[in-house]
Parts: sequence; C-alpha cells; structure tokens
Amino acid sequence: MSQTVSAADQDGYRIEHDTMGEVRVPASALYRAQTQRAVENFPISGQGLEPAHIHALAQVKKAAARANKELGVLDGTLADAIVAAADSVIAGEHDDQFPVDTYQTGSGTSSNMNMNEVLATLASRGDLEVHPNDHVNCSQSSNDVFPTSVHVAVTQGVVEHLLPSLAHLAEALEEKAEAWKSVVKSGRTHLMDATPVTLGQEFGGYAAAVRYGIERVEAALPRTAEVPQGGTAVGTGINTPVGFPQKVIENLAEQTSLPLTEARNHFEAQSTRDGLVEMSGALRTIAVSVTKICNDLRWMGSGPNTGLGEIAIPDLQPGSSIMPGKVNPVIPEAVLMVCAKVVGNDAAIAWGGAQGAFELNVQIPLMGTSLLESIRLLANAATVLADKTVSGLTANEEKARFYAEASPSIVTPLNKLIGYESAAKIAKHAVAERISVREAVIALGFVERGELTEEQLDSALDVLSMTAPKA
Amino acid sequence: MSQTVSAADQDGYRIEHDTMGEVRVPASALYRAQTQRAVENFPISGQGLEPAHIHALAQVKKAAARANKELGVLDGTLADAIVAAADSVIAGEHDDQFPVDTYQTGSGTSSNMNMNEVLATLASRGDLEVHPNDHVNCSQSSNDVFPTSVHVAVTQGVVEHLLPSLAHLAEALEEKAEAWKSVVKSGRTHLMDATPVTLGQEFGGYAAAVRYGIERVEAALPRTAEVPQGGTAVGTGINTPVGFPQKVIENLAEQTSLPLTEARNHFEAQSTRDGLVEMSGALRTIAVSVTKICNDLRWMGSGPNTGLGEIAIPDLQPGSSIMPGKVNPVIPEAVLMVCAKVVGNDAAIAWGGAQGAFELNVQIPLMGTSLLESIRLLANAATVLADKTVSGLTANEEKARFYAEASPSIVTPLNKLIGYESAAKIAKHAVAERISVREAVIALGFVERGELTEEQLDSALDVLSMTAPKA
Amino acid sequence: MSQTVSAADQDGYRIEHDTMGEVRVPASALYRAQTQRAVENFPISGQGLEPAHIHALAQVKKAAARANKELGVLDGTLADAIVAAADSVIAGEHDDQFPVDTYQTGSGTSSNMNMNEVLATLASRGDLEVHPNDHVNCSQSSNDVFPTSVHVAVTQGVVEHLLPSLAHLAEALEEKAEAWKSVVKSGRTHLMDATPVTLGQEFGGYAAAVRYGIERVEAALPRTAEVPQGGTAVGTGINTPVGFPQKVIENLAEQTSLPLTEARNHFEAQSTRDGLVEMSGALRTIAVSVTKICNDLRWMGSGPNTGLGEIAIPDLQPGSSIMPGKVNPVIPEAVLMVCAKVVGNDAAIAWGGAQGAFELNVQIPLMGTSLLESIRLLANAATVLADKTVSGLTANEEKARFYAEASPSIVTPLNKLIGYESAAKIAKHAVAERISVREAVIALGFVERGELTEEQLDSALDVLSMTAPKA
Amino acid sequence: MSQTVSAADQDGYRIEHDTMGEVRVPASALYRAQTQRAVENFPISGQGLEPAHIHALAQVKKAAARANKELGVLDGTLADAIVAAADSVIAGEHDDQFPVDTYQTGSGTSSNMNMNEVLATLASRGDLEVHPNDHVNCSQSSNDVFPTSVHVAVTQGVVEHLLPSLAHLAEALEEKAEAWKSVVKSGRTHLMDATPVTLGQEFGGYAAAVRYGIERVEAALPRTAEVPQGGTAVGTGINTPVGFPQKVIENLAEQTSLPLTEARNHFEAQSTRDGLVEMSGALRTIAVSVTKICNDLRWMGSGPNTGLGEIAIPDLQPGSSIMPGKVNPVIPEAVLMVCAKVVGNDAAIAWGGAQGAFELNVQIPLMGTSLLESIRLLANAATVLADKTVSGLTANEEKARFYAEASPSIVTPLNKLIGYESAAKIAKHAVAERISVREAVIALGFVERGELTEEQLDSALDVLSMTAPKA
Repeated sequence: MSQTVSAADQDGYRIEHDTMGEVRVPASALYRAQTQRAVENFPISGQGLEPAHIHALAQVKKAAARANKELGVLDGTLADAIVAAADSVIAGEHDDQFPVDTYQTGSGTSSNMNMNEVLATLASRGDLEVHPNDHVNCSQSSNDVFPTSVHVAVTQGVVEHLLPSLAHLAEALEEKAEAWKSVVKSGRTHLMDATPVTLGQEFGGYAAAVRYGIERVEAALPRTAEVPQGGTAVGTGINTPVGFPQKVIENLAEQTSLPLTEARNHFEAQSTRDGLVEMSGALRTIAVSVTKICNDLRWMGSGPNTGLGEIAIPDLQPGSSIMPGKVNPVIPEAVLMVCAKVVGNDAAIAWGGAQGAFELNVQIPLMGTSLLESIRLLANAATVLADKTVSGLTANEEKARFYAEASPSIVTPLNKLIGYESAAKIAKHAVAERISVREAVIALGFVERGELTEEQLDSALDVLSMTAPKA
Repeated sequence: MSQTVSAADQDGYRIEHDTMGEVRVPASALYRAQTQRAVENFPISGQGLEPAHIHALAQVKKAAARANKELGVLDGTLADAIVAAADSVIAGEHDDQFPVDTYQTGSGTSSNMNMNEVLATLASRGDLEVHPNDHVNCSQSSNDVFPTSVHVAVTQGVVEHLLPSLAHLAEALEEKAEAWKSVVKSGRTHLMDATPVTLGQEFGGYAAAVRYGIERVEAALPRTAEVPQGGTAVGTGINTPVGFPQKVIENLAEQTSLPLTEARNHFEAQSTRDGLVEMSGALRTIAVSVTKICNDLRWMGSGPNTGLGEIAIPDLQPGSSIMPGKVNPVIPEAVLMVCAKVVGNDAAIAWGGAQGAFELNVQIPLMGTSLLESIRLLANAATVLADKTVSGLTANEEKARFYAEASPSIVTPLNKLIGYESAAKIAKHAVAERISVREAVIALGFVERGELTEEQLDSALDVLSMTAPKA
Repeated sequence: MSQTVSAADQDGYRIEHDTMGEVRVPASALYRAQTQRAVENFPISGQGLEPAHIHALAQVKKAAARANKELGVLDGTLADAIVAAADSVIAGEHDDQFPVDTYQTGSGTSSNMNMNEVLATLASRGDLEVHPNDHVNCSQSSNDVFPTSVHVAVTQGVVEHLLPSLAHLAEALEEKAEAWKSVVKSGRTHLMDATPVTLGQEFGGYAAAVRYGIERVEAALPRTAEVPQGGTAVGTGINTPVGFPQKVIENLAEQTSLPLTEARNHFEAQSTRDGLVEMSGALRTIAVSVTKICNDLRWMGSGPNTGLGEIAIPDLQPGSSIMPGKVNPVIPEAVLMVCAKVVGNDAAIAWGGAQGAFELNVQIPLMGTSLLESIRLLANAATVLADKTVSGLTANEEKARFYAEASPSIVTPLNKLIGYESAAKIAKHAVAERISVREAVIALGFVERGELTEEQLDSALDVLSMTAPKA
Repeated sequence: MSQTVSAADQDGYRIEHDTMGEVRVPASALYRAQTQRAVENFPISGQGLEPAHIHALAQVKKAAARANKELGVLDGTLADAIVAAADSVIAGEHDDQFPVDTYQTGSGTSSNMNMNEVLATLASRGDLEVHPNDHVNCSQSSNDVFPTSVHVAVTQGVVEHLLPSLAHLAEALEEKAEAWKSVVKSGRTHLMDATPVTLGQEFGGYAAAVRYGIERVEAALPRTAEVPQGGTAVGTGINTPVGFPQKVIENLAEQTSLPLTEARNHFEAQSTRDGLVEMSGALRTIAVSVTKICNDLRWMGSGPNTGLGEIAIPDLQPGSSIMPGKVNPVIPEAVLMVCAKVVGNDAAIAWGGAQGAFELNVQIPLMGTSLLESIRLLANAATVLADKTVSGLTANEEKARFYAEASPSIVTPLNKLIGYESAAKIAKHAVAERISVREAVIALGFVERGELTEEQLDSALDVLSMTAPKA
C-alpha cells in the first residue's frame, strides 16, 4: 500500500504522500494527502458539501466499482471492498471525514479525491491495498464523477423531498379551498375593492400555483437527471471500457431508485451544467409563487384591528419583545426569506453556469451546494408552511362578507343592464356619499325611472352569485 | 355615439369624454379619452408595447367579438364590425395609434382601453355606434384580456421565431460537428491542457446545448400557453356568459394556429404571472448555454499570433479604429451582450412576478415587454450567430493537431499500464524538460526497463484514438 | 477625400470603401462604409444608442480635436472643422445618422466609427478632406473614446436629470411630512397593529430614504466620473502625444460643466467598467427604497371600503375596463415597474461587467445603454411620482386616529408601570373581547387594585404622545 | 425569578413559561421559553446566525444596559450583571446557546429574545432576578436592536476583516506590478492581438481595481454604520428615556471602536434596510472586479503547452484524478466561486430589501446573514488569493516578449507616419504571409519607396516603447 504506509507521528499526525510529495495528515483521518492539501489550500467558508451530496458521491463510486467488476476492469475482491466501503459512507457513518471546503477547485476534484482516499482507506484490509486513483477512481475522472454526484443528489432531493413537500402544501391549501368555498369576500385588484370572490377560490388558486410548481420541476427533471458519468476527463470516455457508462448508470439508477439516465451528448454534459441552471429556474419560479401566497396570507391576516383581518394566522410565539400580546405571521415571514434565498442562489447558479470554458465548467461545487440548499430550504419551508400556518388558519366569515358587500365594484353586473357609464356614476356616488351601491342606485333614480326593477337589482347585487359566470 | 361626438377644435384637437370628464385628443387620433389620459399620465420611457404584443391584443378582441356573437351576447353586425377593425390592427395598419407607455398601470388597463377605443372608432360607421367598454370590451376585463395578450404574443414569439432560430443555429453547429469529426485537438479543462477531443465533438456539444434549449422552451410552453381569458375582473368570470372562455380561446387558437389552452385554474391565472417567469427561466438557461458557446468560439479564434488560433472567425468589419488590420469576433460579442440582457430581463421578470397581491399582479406590462424583448433578441441573435459566424468558421487543423500532441495529458492512457503515479512522473518530466510525452517515457527508462513496449506506447499515445472509449 | 469620393448610384446608393473593400451606402447618408457594414452585421434589436449617449460621444470628439490642435498634432483648420461638425451633432441635428444597433461589437467600435464617419463627412468641405481614422479619431481609440462617452453620458444623466428629480421627490415628500406631523395613526410592524406613529413621521422617513439615495449616487459619482480617455488602444496611450489625456479631459469638463476627471489608472480604466457597475448598484438601491415607498402608498390608499384607506391617491384615469368607477394607484404601479426594470438592468450590467478580459471589456454598449435607461426611467419616475401622486395625496385623519386608538399595541407604555407580562394579558384580553385597551385595563382590575391610577392610564394611553420618547 | 423558576424534569427538560404558556426546555439550556418555541417553529435550514452577529448583538445589549444605568432607568447592580453576562457572550463562551434558525421571524425577534433569555439567565444570581423583557430588553425593541446588531456586525466585518484583506491583496498585486514593470507582452482586446503592454501595467491595473473596491466600501460605510438603535418598536422611541439613542450608540462605538453613528432619521432606519443593500452592491462590484482578475490569471497561466503560458500559477495540489501531472489554477477557481456567491447573496439582499412595509422590513435575518457571509467569504478569498496565488506567480518573460513582437497590431505607430489605411495593408499582409510586421513593411516596399526610413521603422516597432505615450 505504497501511498498509505503511514505512521501516526508523535504529534497525532502521520505522513502521507501523493505525486507532489509528503503531507502531514491527522493520525486518525481516513483521508490522505490530497484531502489534507485541499483542507490547507481552501480556508474560505468553513463549510463543506451538503451531506446528501457526499452520500450521492459514494453512490457513484459504488456504481462504478460494480461496473468495473462486471466489465472485468477491476478485480472482484477489490471492487467488493470498495462497494462495502461506499455503503458505510452512504449510511452516513463517515460524514466527518469530508472536511474539504465548498470553495475549492471548481471541478470538485478535491472532494472526489477526498472520497477516493476515504474509500481506499476503508477498503484496504490486510493484504488488500486499494489505491485511490487506480482502483477507487478506476474508469472515472472528477470531471464526470463530481457533476454526476451533483445531479444524483439534486434528483434525489427533488424526488424524495421537494416534490412530496410541495404536494403536502398543495393538499393543505386544497383543504382550505374546499372548506371555504362559500365564504364570500371582496376581490382586490390593484389592492382596490373589486368584485367578490370566495376565500375558497383564492386558496384554490394558491393550491394550483403550487401544483404548477410541481409540474415545473417535473418538466425540468429529465434533463437534470441526465448524468455525465462515462465521459471521464473530457467527455470522450478515455480510460473507460466500452459499455461502461451504460453499466454504471444502470447500477446507479438501481441503487437509488431514481430516474437517472445517461447524457445524450457527453460533451454537452461535461462542459455545461445547464441542467442545474434549468432546475434552479424552476425552483425560482416556485419561490415567486410562494412569495405571492405568503404575502396574501400576511395581508389577509393583518390587524387584528388596523388591518384586513379576513383570516387569523395561528399564534406560535410572542411576537414582540416590546409590544405585549402582539402576534405576528412568523412562518410566512420565514418562508418569504427562504424564497429570497432561493432567488439569490438562482442568481449565483446562473452566474456560475455561464462560466464554463471548453471541456469543463469550474463552478460545480458552488452550483451544486447552492442548488441543494435551495431544494432543502424550499422543501422544509413548504412543510412548515403547510403544517404550522395553512392547516391552522381560520376565516373571519363575517368580516369577509362585510367586505364583499361594501365593495363599490359590486356595481359591475349592472353594466349589462344600464351600461358601463351609468354604472360608474352609481359607484362614484356610493363612495362619495358613503352609502351602499343599492342605496346609490335608488338615490340616483334608476328604479324610479324604471331602468331597473327591484328584482333585477336584488339579483344583480347578490354577492355570492357574482363569484361565478351567470348561466 | 355619446362618447365620441367629437369635433376637431381649431388647434387640431377634439374633445372626448369618459367617466371622469372631458379630455383634449389629437383630432386625427383613432383613440379617445382614456388613451389620451394615459399618454399624459405616463411620460416615463417613451416606449410602448412591442408591436407583436399589440397585434396579439387585437387577436384577443377579435376572438372575443366572435364568441360574443356566437353566444348571443353581442349583436352580429356590431361584432362583425369589431372583427373587421381588429383585422386591420392585426395587419399592422394602425401601429401608430398605440402611444401608451409600457410603464403605465400595472394591469395594462390603459393599453386595453387604447385598443378598445381604437377598435370602437374603426368599427363605428354611419349609424353603427360601437362603445369601447360595452361592446369592444364585452365579456372581458383588462385583468383577463391583457395578460392573455401577453401569453399569446409570447407563445407566438416562441413558436414562430425563437424555436426555428434555435433549430437553425443547432443545424449550423451540427454541420461543423460533422465536418470536423476527425480534427483532433487538445481538450482543455480548468483551461489547462487535457486529453484530446475532436473539434467536431466540441461543436456537437454546442449543438446539443442548443437542442436542449429548444426542449427547455417546449417543456415550459404548455403552462405559458394557458391563458386567463374568461376570468374577467377577478377570475370568477363575472359578466361573461357560460361557455365564454372555451369559445373565445377556441377562436383564438384557431385564428393564430397556436397551441393555446384555457387556464386550468382561473384564480391562479389572474393573480400570478408565473408562466412568464418560468418561460423567462428557460430563456435565461439558453442565454447561459449560448454564453459558453460564444466564449469558446472567441477563445478558439483568439490571436492570430498571441492566442489559441484553432479556428478563424469570419471577417465582417474592420476591428479597430486605431489598430489597423485588426479583426474581432464581433458577432459573438453582440450575442454575448444579448445574453446579458436576457439575464437582466429575467431578473426583472422574476422581481415583477413576485409582486402580485390578491386577484392581480400589477407588473404585467413590464413582464410582457421584457419577455417579448428577450425572445426577439435571442431569436435574432441565434440567426445572426448561425449565419454570420458559425457557418463561416474555418478550422486550423494543423494547429489543432499540434496542440493535441503537445498536451502532457496524453500520458493518461498509460495509467492503465503503469499506474497513475508513474504516469504523473512522466508528465511532469515532459513539462519540465520541454520534451514530448513519448520522449519522457523513454528518458525515464520505462521502455528500457520493459514496463512498456514500443508498440504499447505507440498505441497508447495515438491522439485520435484517445477521443473515444477503447474497445 | 479618398474614402469619400462617392457618387449616389442610380438606386439611391453610393459606393464607399474601407480597409476591407467596397460597400453600398444610402446616397444621402452622412456615414460611410464601416457604419453600413455594422448596420448589416447587427440586425438584432432595431435599437441604437440613447441620443444622450450619441451627444456625449460627439463631445469627446470635440474635446479631442481641440486637444489635438492645442498639442500641435492636428492642423488647426482641420480641427476646427471637426469641432464645428461635432457641435451640430451635439445639438441633436443628426440623430438619425446613427443607425448602429446597441448589440454590436462589444467595444462600441462600430458606433465610434459611425461618429468618425459622420463627423468626417460634415467636416469635409471644399478642399478640406477629413479622414475618419487619421483625423477625427486622431490620438484616440474606440477603447478609450467609447467608454469615455458612456461615463460622460452617465455623469450627465445623473447630475442633470436624476439627482434633481430625486431632490424634487424628496421635497414633495417633505411637504407632506410637515403637513401631517400631527396626524396620528397606528404603526404597523409585520403588518400587524403596532404602537402609534404620525403620518408625517412616515413621510419623513420616505423623504429621508430618497435623500439617502442622492447621497448614494453622489458617493459613487467620483469613480464613475473618471474617464479612460487617453489610454487609446490598451491603456498605454500609444499614438497620443504626451499631455493629451489631461488636455482632452480638461476640454471635456469645460464643455460639459461636469466633474469629469482622468482615470487614476488607465489599465483599470480600460479593462474594467466597474464604475458603471458601482453606479448601477446605487440606482438599484434607490429602486429598492422607492419600491417600499410605493408599496406603502398603495396599501395606505387601498380601499376605499375594503382596504386601509388612510390616504387618498389622486384619481388620474378610470381604473377598470369592467368595474365602473374604480380608481387605481396607477402612478405607483408604473413606478414599481420602473424599479423592477432598474433591478433587471442592474443584473445585466453586473453580468456584463464581469466579462472583461485582458485589456478590454466587450459589453460596453449593453452596459452603457442599460445604465442610461435606468437613469432616465428613474428620473422620470421620480418626477411623475412627485407631481402626479405625492403632491396630490390627502389624508383621512379621522380613520388614521381611529386606527391609532384601536391598536392593542398602545398597551406598550404600560410595560414600565406594570411589566411586560401583565401588559400582554391586557392586550390579549382587549383583542379577545373586542374592547379597547383602556376598557381591558379596567376590566382586569388594574385600577381597582391600585396598580394604576386613572391619571397614569390617561397619560400612558395618549396616542399622540406615544410618537416621541418621553421626557 | 418568576419566569425562570424551572426544574429540570426527569427527562432532562425543565418547564419554562412565557406569555403564551408553558414550554419544555432542555434542562441545561441558558435560554428559555421563547427560544425553545422558535427552535420548534423554524426547522428550516439548520443554521443560525453567524457567530460574529451573535457577538455584535451582545454588544448592543451591553451598551443598552450601560445607557439604562447611566440614564437611571435600570438599577445599577442589575445593569452591571447584564453587562457582565454580555461580556461572556461577546467572548464567545456561549455560542452554543443560540440555536434559533436564520429563517425565523423576519424582525429577528426570536434571536433577540434568545439573547434576552440567555443574558437574563446568566445575569440572574442569588437574589438578583433579571427579566428578559423588562430588564435585558429595557428601552429596546427587536425592531431597533436586531437591525442595529446587523449593522454593527457588518461594519465590524468590513473594517476589521474585509478592508485589510483587500489591502493585502492590492499590495501583493502591486509587488508584481513593480517587479514586472519592464516585462513586455502583447495586449489583447476582444481577445485578439493588440499593441504591447507590460505585465506590470496589467498587474498595476488589477491592484487599482482592488483599491477602488476599498474606496467603494468606504464610500458606502457611513450609511451602513448608521444604526437604528433608540427607535424601539416603530421608530418613535416609545419606552425610551430622552437621550437614550445618543448614549447607547456612544457606548456601542466606544466598546467596539467602530465608526457607528445614530440614524439621522429613525423612521427610515427602522422601515428600510437600504444601508445593507448599498453595502452589498459595493461587495458585488468587488466580486465583479475580482472575477475579471481571476479570469485573466487563469488565461495567462493556461497551458502549459496549448494555452497562453505567460505566467505560471503555483502548484498547490494534483489537479486531476485521471490526468497525471496536471496542475490547475485551483485558488482562482475557488475565488471565482466566491464571487458568484457574493453576486447571489446580493440578489437575495436586494430582493429582501424591497419587501419592507410600513414600520418594518421583515427580511432582516436573511439580509444580515447573507451580507455577513459575503463579507467573510470575500475577505478570506482575498487573503487566499494574495498568499497562495499572486505572491507565488512567476512570469515567462521570454514568451511574453515573443507575443509582443508577434502581434500584428504593433503596426499601429505607423499610422502617424503612413496613415491608417496603409498600416492596415501591412498588418493584413503580415498575417496572411505569416511574416513579421517589419518584414511586411519591407515586402510591401514602404522603405524602398522612401515612405519610411529604416530608423523610423526601428523606432516605431520597438515594443517596449509602445507601452507609453511618445514624448
């Protein structure tokens, strides 16, 4: 085990070497020289890859070891040892062995070598010497392994975490839509009094927006779930046996139960990370939708006495350190900040995505970490919003109906009976005189003059009936 | 024709009125009071809607007039007059009659009323008095008409302009991929010498990126092509006859031959413009892809004497006002600026998209104009890039092969014969001594010691064979 | 006039030539071959530079001609002819002679040559043959002239247009702050009822935000007003006489009365456009401030019957095509869209700014046009907002005071008398029982038990006194 | 100690209560009920505030306790106990006691209460019962304390960390500028061969860009260093004694040695976070500058055999897991990713900054955390770039000079001798025939015809002399 003959020195370090020479590594570390160099080279953020990303990287290593064995490129015993080592990493047993900063070499080579070294150490047992490059990295390059690991982690995050959370949020909204389908209230356009809607219609619209969000992610997923594995250094598949990409991706899909496919063009797949940019754009659209929903909830719940007060948002904690008894919409606020972060991450991802040159994009760790953070935040935010806010909302039906009837825009159905211009006169009169629309119709003589009958008026001004087209 | 009894006054103006009172309007204008108010209210950018948008808006009016006639809501003669008027606007005969600034009321009401007024004037003939609101706008609201017109224009721009242009660019790139499939060159990762690729593989990757761009737009299109028409003021369809949305959208799809569909949820459809945000995200991803392609082209063509010089970009114009004889990659630069603009428009669109409240988003003109500009710029840029740059590129095959053979990374196939660490020694020796990899292998005694045969070496170091997996 | 011996051909074209050969140019055009090539090369947006930018470019040419004459590099007659020609362009007499698209070569060389050609044609009279490169462009390069012209136009836009407009807006807000200094209303934090403020305090805050915006622009201006003129091709000043930059910039400052200075480092000045990025960041911050102000105005003015209704926004036009009598906050909406555009332009500018390489950034036309648009839009928006909205606002004092007294947070002064926890009990009781805070204090026995006297209560619950610290 | 009579229950929890009721808190926690509620309410990111932010928050508490004592609002013993408790938090002794997620209530109330509770627990000793709200939070509100803490932490990060790091980077660049002031190389504009520059001039330009970055931050700092402390709930200073803001900010400035000042307008100061948006814009501009520098370094160092190879970037680690011996510019790549992140954070900060309403912005934790991350990343990146890359760069002077002489643009000085058009012919001839410019001049007969003497030619074509204006 030429590279790993390493003795813990007196200070708790051992000496490792790589192609550039010797390095002091903590005696107990599973990783070796290249990881240590990276730790020293990149004291930038103090934060490494997301754990889900590390596990996905181990999945790729496992799939590759299996493929190498199946194609006869790697000895079976050796491959099995790598697979077993990878399984322990996938299980989260060695998360502390991946100390490399996110802000590292843009190909993720340091993280790939970190994984190669940890797996080599774990897999080397007795006489079995497993080499990080020659064995663990066999038929691979950081340039295909690392982006593949990002796409695997993203696909997994989306399929297993984000989409179920969004569906959960949509369901919570749909329950309210059903419960409140007859709670009539004033619509608001330009923030001004408009014709009536039901609170259920509004929540149905929110649910639909979230459902569209799910469609958006699903529409992007096929391209995000395409992985570059098999292209090795530059997309040509140099140093792979024929059939390797198919085999390794088949293994990967089987291991993870994810809809992963081989890149249709390995040169596009290695030199761009457009699939991540696209997926981030889908998340960004969801952030836009959710921002609107949370703002509506906050305004509906504003008050209790100087705001709209159409709904009550659950009390979760004292709202103010100085104003006693104050209750604030804290969950929608937290979710709105998540949305802002998703927008920011999206800007970083697009910026990074544009920086590819020739056969490689060197902003992969940044793009991967940012996108995985967005997925995680959005998924958690959707769950919290559903469970701690939406499901606990209550409607103030009385106030809602009061608003519906107070809106001067309920004059609108009269357009078809007396024309837009006459209707406008009525609305303006009602507002100026602070009387109801019905009173204004009478006061302006429309009934007296026979332009409208009382029956027509009653029918036209029924606010709940205004919430659907007239048969 | 109460609203339009208007006489040109002595100063070339006539007096119009609306529900707020009298307004002086240019005597020859087809538009009336509300348009004139808007002209005076919004002296902000000096630029109005895109002409394609105005024509799409007229299409909606035509479809609505037809539906109103079919459903018996509007008199046939009157409806036919509106249709004929709309046809003349669609034909571009009255583009100068739409002076309202993009930066207007956020619902686009001023532009909708501008259209209503122009069509009313055009349709009013002899005894036939057509009212802007009661007739032209019958069964409609700005809140469904205006966003519908944006989605129609966007769908049209995408289907008829952007997608064909992208396909054209992909074809131009594919032709080069085919022509250069055996032109071997050095790959570059991290901008550093890597293992060989062919120039054809690179262009194949570019073509694939553009083809993926087409898929991205197509994946977003179904949601963008959903239109809110029929929801009227707040999504409830108030003041529409039952069956109106289906009828009007059927007409619209038929008139335009576009895959337009009715919003599945009219409350989502009126209160958000998420479909535009999503489509913009797709365009932004294309801008990212095209940025990378243009940068590669510029670097490949850099020189002639102090750059890479792998390809020659067509000479289109003198490059410098001071450096005689200089030729610059002017088209890729123009296209890169288009990409920057698309990224900027995308940021504006997402920002605007997040600002909806209750039943309306009031950033529609900004979002529509920005997205339509992005579509137009990207479509034109793709065409220009294909025709004025890609199709005229020539390869410097000699230099490309020279680079391929000069890259120390061609040592990579030796990994499998002598291991990664020995191969690294060879590469470093070659660079340090400025000799070829082959010479370094010999100099370091690998052949002498029998670790490699000359035949193995010849086979391993054949650069073209490195551009594909080994059978 | 070797380059311009050109006869209008029969078809209304004449033949021009440049170093690449012959070109057909419209017979009446003042421009020549290189402009025409650019027109044909860049059919992308259909939009050229902002007129203010063209005039600034002519100012640079004028200043350079004067400097060339003063330093003896250019014959006096010739220089004077160029100056006279430039003056006519500055006066706006030839705006139609600049047909080159914004999306052109990234250095703006095409626009610089367009200017060189137009001035050469205008200046060539009788025997005097003025050459676009050798004379008009003497001691210059596009690489210093064009970015200088952008910085001149930006400085001018800021100094003469944006800053006065912002000051005007601040004054309008300050007038309201003064007028409403005693109009007490409920504060709102988290959109929830908080302790009282005066409407005047709120408007004072808005005015302060705008005044800070002015400071932000002024803080960025010194770097934006530094110009690269004199660096010529790559910053070295090749082909300039010693003393040229000082002379030309002195002339430029004198001609324009702007605080222009020479770049302190000509290599930074030519290879980056960071000064534009910084200024755009200042504008973006203003857009953020103004967004908040406009949203507050819209919410304060919401209603009339189902919103907050604390102020009334002037009626400028009918608000709805379907809802009669509706009045909307159309100016704040237009301004909010301007803010979104400024944010988008800022993203494009930063994106472009990051794309420099070696001695040049090739996104200058995009950056310049976007920034000049932002300046223009923001300046116009500030004026319109001041004149058509802020100055016409009226307060609903009665409603404002009602809200102030209705807020349960007016319990806050009791913290110091009975502690936060007791005060919280009172506030919650008041909300639950729908009674006033005063009533809740009594109902819960605080007066009866002697924890508070009636006098203390009266003093503590005086809402206007809560709008300032207690002496 | 009414709120903290708490016994650890059998399960390692104790019962705490707040105004909403009882809560189970870990027995050993220094925090209490409201912190625990927040922990349970916001399971979103798993990450809390930056430690530097927590320490800054404790500084504010200390300054407030001192001011309260000085103004006689708080008992001296009690105030001193709070000060001592705050000192231990400032010293970093209790970082693990702040478990509240960044994505919490947008005012940061949960973090403020977390601090109030921890300090109350630490300060309560024997008979001394310190109340989180009544004592620790005395004369304060989350709405002034929390944003103040952000501005303090930002100011500290900028003054103590970022500015020194940028200065350090500028110095490293200036050393190279000085060392390489006579290393002549080809300039490149549009990536194409241009007239010569020195490598020192380029590095001088980079240093200047970084120095401008320092100026940008300093220009923004006065507004960022203004703090809202003293405004309490809504800016009015309710529940503060007169003179409190002056006193507390004086204390804060003295404690931290930072240039902190009181907000000139407390309503602006509480309802907007524009000072953070502005500062982020300054950082974003620096990210743009540094992006350009890193890309230049990467391209200059590209190769070794197929790139430009003008400089050598220090070898820090093996570059590739598959390509032996490869060395990559890993630090510039890491720094480029930092720049992308700063751009992304900036987008999030602007987005958040625009979401204020009435008396509060509720995106403060997001804005603060993002800006503090940007400061930290950029500072660390500048240091790493200076120490691990710039200071170790070596120039390939031979190649640099070769390029200078190979550039056809060295024909430029001939413009003044024979005119631009003749010079263009020479340049084109040199490129086409692959001969030097000097050879092309001769070949085209300019010397033979006497248009140029050999001496003029020698003088004109001296590349080093082209790097400065001619005397």
